[in-house]
Amino acid sequence: MGAMADPVTHPGRSEIRIEAVLQALADPIRLRFVRELAKLGCEGAPCGSIELPVTKSTRTHHLRILREAGVIHVRPEGTSRISTLRRDDLDALYPGLLDSILAAAH
Amino acid sequence: MGAMADPVTHPGRSEIRIEAVLQALADPIRLRFVRELAKLGCEGAPCGSIELPVTKSTRTHHLRILREAGVIHVRPEGTSRISTLRRDDLDALYPGLLDSILAAAH
Repeated sequence: MGAMADPVTHPGRSEIRIEAVLQALADPIRLRFVRELAKLGCEGAPCGSIELPVTKSTRTHHLRILREAGVIHVRPEGTSRISTLRRDDLDALYPGLLDSILAAAH
Repeated sequence: MGAMADPVTHPGRSEIRIEAVLQALADPIRLRFVRELAKLGCEGAPCGSIELPVTKSTRTHHLRILREAGVIHVRPEGTSRISTLRRDDLDALYPGLLDSILAAAH
């Protein structure tokens, strides 16, 4: 039931829109999450391993916005979920965007 | 009275925040305005010379968000206002950001 109520879908590369990406990144909590994810590289991070100063439901909300915008990929692994940054897609679509934002996000 | 009620203030370069810049650009109307402004170069555009499919008050709202985020500079010139893109400030703070967004905004 849970899985059906909240399917983990992702936009394809061609479906990613710059407005949604900017909106997703225009939040200090989401920017912090993306910055931590970028540090971890391509292996991804188990859900919860990146600490955020928010409640679990707020965290879920932020991760959904990032996923639906095409900024992160989330895959189930056992009972957990692993998040990865969609760096290849973002770098292909918007060369320099992610790097400039990550460099600025302090 | 009008000028006092709506002072044309701008954040200094050091006051510009990446979250506010991304938020300001994460809107199709504002992105369109910024794209048109970028085409015009540094001379700037008289208020109203860049057509937007919105009412005057909505336009004023969008321009205020861009100005308060540090994306555009607005200067009075007679009874009009001239908008310019703060490209020097944005390029200095976030190298590559504006170029990647302008290239994507289609």
